[in-house]
Amino acid sequence: MTKFVYLFKEGNQTMKNLLGGKGANLAEMSKIGMPVPQGFTVTTEACNDYYARGKKIAPEIIEQIEKALAATEKLEGKKFGDANDPFLVSVRSGARASMPGMMDTILNLGLNDESVKGLAKLTGNTRFAYDSYRRFIQMFSDVVMEIDKEKYEELLAEMKERKGAEFDTDLGDQDLVDLVGEFKALYLKLKGEEFPQDPKEQLIEAITAVFRSWDNPRANTYRRLNHIPYEWGTAVNVQAMVFGNMGDTSGTGVAFTRNPSDGTKVLYGEYLFNAQGEDVVAGIRTPKPISELQKDNEGIYNQFVEISNKLEAHYRDMQDLEFTIQKGKLYILQTRNGKRTAQAALKIAIDLVKEGVLTEKEALLKVEPSQLDSLLHPQFNPASLGKAKLIATGLNASPGAATGRVAFSADRAKELKEMDGLPVILVRQETSPEDIEGMIVASGILTSRGGMTSHAAVVARGMGRCCVAGAGSVRVSEAKKIFEVNGETYKEGDWISLDGSTGKIYGEKVETMDATVSGDFETLMSWADKFASLEVRTNADNPRDAKVAFDFGAKGIGLCRTEHMFFEADRISSVREMIVAKNEEERKAALAKLLPMQREDFIGLYKEMQGFPVTIRYLDPPLHEFLPTEADDIKALAKDMGITEKELNATINDLHETNPMLGHRGVRLSVTYPEIAEMQTRAVIEAAIEVNKSGMSVKPEIMIPLVGELKELKYIKDVVVKTANQIIKDAKVDLKYSVGTMIEVPRAALLADEIAQEAEFFSFGTNDLTQMTFGFSRDDAGKFLKDYYDKKIFVNDPFAHVDQKGVGKLMKMASELGKQTRPDIKLGICGEHGGDPLSIEFCHAIGLTYVSCSPFRVPIARLAAAHANIKNPR
Amino acid sequence: MTKFVYLFKEGNQTMKNLLGGKGANLAEMSKIGMPVPQGFTVTTEACNDYYARGKKIAPEIIEQIEKALAATEKLEGKKFGDANDPFLVSVRSGARASMPGMMDTILNLGLNDESVKGLAKLTGNTRFAYDSYRRFIQMFSDVVMEIDKEKYEELLAEMKERKGAEFDTDLGDQDLVDLVGEFKALYLKLKGEEFPQDPKEQLIEAITAVFRSWDNPRANTYRRLNHIPYEWGTAVNVQAMVFGNMGDTSGTGVAFTRNPSDGTKVLYGEYLFNAQGEDVVAGIRTPKPISELQKDNEGIYNQFVEISNKLEAHYRDMQDLEFTIQKGKLYILQTRNGKRTAQAALKIAIDLVKEGVLTEKEALLKVEPSQLDSLLHPQFNPASLGKAKLIATGLNASPGAATGRVAFSADRAKELKEMDGLPVILVRQETSPEDIEGMIVASGILTSRGGMTSHAAVVARGMGRCCVAGAGSVRVSEAKKIFEVNGETYKEGDWISLDGSTGKIYGEKVETMDATVSGDFETLMSWADKFASLEVRTNADNPRDAKVAFDFGAKGIGLCRTEHMFFEADRISSVREMIVAKNEEERKAALAKLLPMQREDFIGLYKEMQGFPVTIRYLDPPLHEFLPTEADDIKALAKDMGITEKELNATINDLHETNPMLGHRGVRLSVTYPEIAEMQTRAVIEAAIEVNKSGMSVKPEIMIPLVGELKELKYIKDVVVKTANQIIKDAKVDLKYSVGTMIEVPRAALLADEIAQEAEFFSFGTNDLTQMTFGFSRDDAGKFLKDYYDKKIFVNDPFAHVDQKGVGKLMKMASELGKQTRPDIKLGICGEHGGDPLSIEFCHAIGLTYVSCSPFRVPIARLAAAHANIKNPR
Repeated sequence: MTKFVYLFKEGNQTMKNLLGGKGANLAEMSKIGMPVPQGFTVTTEACNDYYARGKKIAPEIIEQIEKALAATEKLEGKKFGDANDPFLVSVRSGARASMPGMMDTILNLGLNDESVKGLAKLTGNTRFAYDSYRRFIQMFSDVVMEIDKEKYEELLAEMKERKGAEFDTDLGDQDLVDLVGEFKALYLKLKGEEFPQDPKEQLIEAITAVFRSWDNPRANTYRRLNHIPYEWGTAVNVQAMVFGNMGDTSGTGVAFTRNPSDGTKVLYGEYLFNAQGEDVVAGIRTPKPISELQKDNEGIYNQFVEISNKLEAHYRDMQDLEFTIQKGKLYILQTRNGKRTAQAALKIAIDLVKEGVLTEKEALLKVEPSQLDSLLHPQFNPASLGKAKLIATGLNASPGAATGRVAFSADRAKELKEMDGLPVILVRQETSPEDIEGMIVASGILTSRGGMTSHAAVVARGMGRCCVAGAGSVRVSEAKKIFEVNGETYKEGDWISLDGSTGKIYGEKVETMDATVSGDFETLMSWADKFASLEVRTNADNPRDAKVAFDFGAKGIGLCRTEHMFFEADRISSVREMIVAKNEEERKAALAKLLPMQREDFIGLYKEMQGFPVTIRYLDPPLHEFLPTEADDIKALAKDMGITEKELNATINDLHETNPMLGHRGVRLSVTYPEIAEMQTRAVIEAAIEVNKSGMSVKPEIMIPLVGELKELKYIKDVVVKTANQIIKDAKVDLKYSVGTMIEVPRAALLADEIAQEAEFFSFGTNDLTQMTFGFSRDDAGKFLKDYYDKKIFVNDPFAHVDQKGVGKLMKMASELGKQTRPDIKLGICGEHGGDPLSIEFCHAIGLTYVSCSPFRVPIARLAAAHANIKNPR
Repeated sequence: MTKFVYLFKEGNQTMKNLLGGKGANLAEMSKIGMPVPQGFTVTTEACNDYYARGKKIAPEIIEQIEKALAATEKLEGKKFGDANDPFLVSVRSGARASMPGMMDTILNLGLNDESVKGLAKLTGNTRFAYDSYRRFIQMFSDVVMEIDKEKYEELLAEMKERKGAEFDTDLGDQDLVDLVGEFKALYLKLKGEEFPQDPKEQLIEAITAVFRSWDNPRANTYRRLNHIPYEWGTAVNVQAMVFGNMGDTSGTGVAFTRNPSDGTKVLYGEYLFNAQGEDVVAGIRTPKPISELQKDNEGIYNQFVEISNKLEAHYRDMQDLEFTIQKGKLYILQTRNGKRTAQAALKIAIDLVKEGVLTEKEALLKVEPSQLDSLLHPQFNPASLGKAKLIATGLNASPGAATGRVAFSADRAKELKEMDGLPVILVRQETSPEDIEGMIVASGILTSRGGMTSHAAVVARGMGRCCVAGAGSVRVSEAKKIFEVNGETYKEGDWISLDGSTGKIYGEKVETMDATVSGDFETLMSWADKFASLEVRTNADNPRDAKVAFDFGAKGIGLCRTEHMFFEADRISSVREMIVAKNEEERKAALAKLLPMQREDFIGLYKEMQGFPVTIRYLDPPLHEFLPTEADDIKALAKDMGITEKELNATINDLHETNPMLGHRGVRLSVTYPEIAEMQTRAVIEAAIEVNKSGMSVKPEIMIPLVGELKELKYIKDVVVKTANQIIKDAKVDLKYSVGTMIEVPRAALLADEIAQEAEFFSFGTNDLTQMTFGFSRDDAGKFLKDYYDKKIFVNDPFAHVDQKGVGKLMKMASELGKQTRPDIKLGICGEHGGDPLSIEFCHAIGLTYVSCSPFRVPIARLAAAHANIKNPR
């Protein structure tokens, strides 16, 4: 028979999957002789069994629980439901990973009309005993019976009003005895039965409630955001109660073995005498710093210091402890690796290496890559954020926090900022290249339209500027200089705040803290590079972004989207001339105007990259993206171009597409207009020759997008090679360059062996590859993906983390097929996934050469690459 | 060294790939002792070598040609360039498959200023010799030197005018001698050099011209339409000239061994004495039927009959022969399997079996599946089509020919037809479900918008009605009751004609011939079913189409698109109510109205299919397709629905998608609104129970579209199974049904092993699978695919024939993975490719169970399935 219940003394820390994190740690502490109140853990498998049976606990599991309870009673020398010295327990959920979305704790379980008297006797405090009982009734009703706890709060409030009591503590013993009577009557009325007096019944109900809480909406959302599989289930810990409020030799507290804010090595925490856990956090009495315990009770203090040192050494990481002193005896209720700020994480990891506790590799694994984000971007001051007014939530398009005055145009943003130097938030329906300067001066950008790959999002990420995009409930009127949200109106100059890491928008000023990159950061990054096998490049379209990425340690550019250059104000008109050209000759004339500008772009990029490879993707978007859509703009453009509105409208109409994602774009443009590829090649090669004159050694990598067929790549490669070689020959220089392709169309992955005949490198464009493999339009999927999460069809957003099973299978296939044809083929990724730690781990596993991500993700990617290679060395 | 040139006597009929069809047959005839003028073939490999060298013939090939020439001269006993009895040759292209797009023939090569005198002496006819020479100069200039032949025709016309000659034959000997002088002078003027006098130079130039013609635009188009790979190359045949115009004992003719129109076994052809091949087809002299040759020259006639019998027996097929009699000696210049009408093809194939020449299997292979189309649809009378005025070309959306008076509305079409019974063509911008009755009475349908899967195209194919869709150059004004094309206006009642097989539109009445299905057809189809392994089902959305398909031998429905039912006039309003519903309750109320109608639909389909399986695909298109787009329609609908225009517009706006192909459709709709799947299940199951009461045994197959993930399928399957089982239980009947999925998203193919855990069958939706695998939107790809053909990147339209390398790889993978999980899984295809013979062959090869196609493609698919299994038995 499967063992579903483990006494603490039967487990150990390696049994996390079965016992949950909390259970495994309680067992481990028990094993190594820590003073832990005894108890037992009902396993995660029991939870899965509960769901498999249609939400029923199997009789055999109940039997095992009862046996474990009996064994624990024996260990503690008390009896469940004893009217003199009752055995009371806490019931806590405990999944493999910490899960705030779930039921947390029921305390004092085992209390009933008899045992409450025993507790009163034991504590010498009738008021306390009945207060505990009424809290237990309320807690049990709330989390186990799903009775709205407000109903109980109302009874309490009425009692206080009757008695003229300001605080709960103003109520007397009898008041609380009476209140318990009222609570029980309410329970009877609402549930049609008496409040359960049998502690075993209470216990089984509470365990069931923990299991049930695994599937509540908050837990489901948390799991999705943190990639925790539903199949893991939760364990339940049942532990003997100890009381810190049995007089002045009792107390309770929490402590970290190091400072969780800055990582300094000093015991950090608080305690209160004659108190229960709740009181420490409730804020009615002010807890004392842990250091004062030495004065208050040196023996206990020394014992606690010894224990905390032992536990830190044992777990080889900073610990977060909960303890209770019951009548002079110290109990440890819980230990776990302590949560810490990014800054503290770095310091602790590095200190533990210095102290000889961890190797560099182990230290690297102690820092979560995604945590670094908060070091690189401003953050809200948590104290200040506390009660800030949340007015809407958009897409978390670019991380960091920003606060500032609203401006509805780039010009106005600049004016406001110049006027007094105070920060500004640029608010637009959507941004366009004309807004760039406004985006530079702004502390944050808010748009009401557009997704994670909209102009605002992409540009903001490149700059490291905080951005919340596509906040649909925010209705922006740029003309009226207002935005409305939920019936409230915000106007120019009003303060708002944005959290680009969560997408939250606050309707007021919230204090922010600057990004702080310490020496520890550099140390950790240098270790990361030492152990990583994947290279990290950046996606950058201009020298400004390239410089940021270079400073963050990018070893080249993995994706330069040339069309972003096309959008810039000084060249968009030449681009449009090219589009409305009636023949090749006119088109070439327009391209000739673009050539010197593109050449300058590339010169700038090459220079910033100081010899590291620069991968240039040729024109990708459908041409209609460069043309205006509003009637007024069309009118103005037609005038500029010297053509009639009818002609321009005809061009726009011709270019209209039903499914632009799957339309005339990428390599298909170059097949139709090889002269575009020719111009871009000229710019790439001429720029390289120019920069190399100054002694650099640029080796451009030319990347053809959206290829699905060998002959298609060959057609364009022939144009590229012919053009490039002629220029190189004429210039009498020796310049190496390579030509490769994106793998972003499923067919390219399927036929990668053929395509590698011509492609010297592959770069996985996982944005498009995900769209086409799933048949999802990223722009449209938002509408139905929510249903997919709610119905547990998807755990992860496939646009945030590579879908390893489907898209990943294509990537793996393409990598293997590509290497068959060309064993030394360079393999990279340049989709949004290139900056996502989970996806980076996958890229490492399938043998890619590099990942490329936006500049501010570079440090994260470097650390993630190190993690991947440490966990799974190549 | 590679052998690039073969004497006829060195080859045989198995060497078609190397020698081309014509060359292999000449060699074979030579081998079996037929009287063939000697010669040699330059191989297809030489053609490929020519292109590989940048359009140059290698010196070693020229050497081999010269050797073969010398050997042929020896065999014929003549010398190239001999001034007394010159050796003259014809030069003909000859690819593996017959290729009308290429250069055909140069006759009389070897003529020059000297040998023309020898020819005059030999024929005793100076006029003829110089006429041959001037024709040779003109032909050589045209096809070899690319000089416009009109320039020569002008000189001829001037000469005739000067001489007052009406016909060429009115010119005298000296006139032609002078004309040759003028032709040569023109050549000198245009090319800057004398007309080449060296016959060897003439020959090499002519061979080069044949190679060059392999890559001309006409040849490229023909290859694409007929799936002939560019890599095949063409061979060149050089053959000794014989003359049918050397007096009354000479002659020339062509003959088929059977009647190519109806297939009757009788020698069929024409001949002329004292004539060359040209004269037979030129129409100046009337050729005699071949039967009269018996009277004219019984010896030659008997010899020819004997030869033609021998050749037919040797090739085991009806032959198309060219012959020449030179001074009483019979020569066979060419033999090949004769082209024939579909009707003749059937009769000949069946007769050859009766005659014991072919087995049934061999006979089946003699009939091309696509040929059957012409038996099933009306065709134009070829004589009548001759000079019909072509006014535009649209998409060949549904085959057959139609002629009739233009009507711009369904009502008017019915009136016109009822008035006098004469045929009508319905002309619309695009059709909608309200046009159905008009489409039924019309002989053909013409639309100016919409593609191969537009409403008009799909419905017309189902009905077998001729349809030309998306003819962009035809501007239809339904209000004005006119259409304009190229500046001309057609109005109601004007006669036009459509060829749905080619997309051609004629601006006048063209006589048509009815479809004719004979007993031979039934015989052949019964053989086909005997040897086929793939089953053939049909795509049918209504009983009318289902009946047609059943009569054509469909063994079930492979695809019923339920949304087509939703579009019908009597239910669209309930569908719209469902869409604008504000909550589940309102939605369920609207669905309840649809239930009885859907149930009746399915009852009708089941009845027509008489117990064969019926596969019902659940709602697939995005919901916005059911809502109007024009402001007036929106206004009217809002009023009907009792909501404000603003509300309706908000719904339409919410439903708008950037890429609808990749949007909220297919299974995604059911995930969001499981109540739709529930209603459809209710209709499917209740209808089956109803029909089975009458003793039928319907086993519905429920098909979920657009699945890409197991859990997604499982979610909906659970809804289906729960609903279905409850109904079956309540009805106390025993009903079997199955639940399967389309494989149309790449991810489904990649994870088919998982998906087969729930799917009891797969049906490949190759339309969408092609779109997503290539990243092509079918609606948009038309714009750039032309460039892909022109640049030889694609040979075939991947929407017409399954892309075996890419899409096919996914299909093969999915089939194999599906069988791993569920060895007895049923595998089908229901995309447009299901009716395409090439794709059917592939489906057979990868082990599918059935193909499903539109009703009128069913016979074609049955024959193609037989071909596939005969060529590659399972």
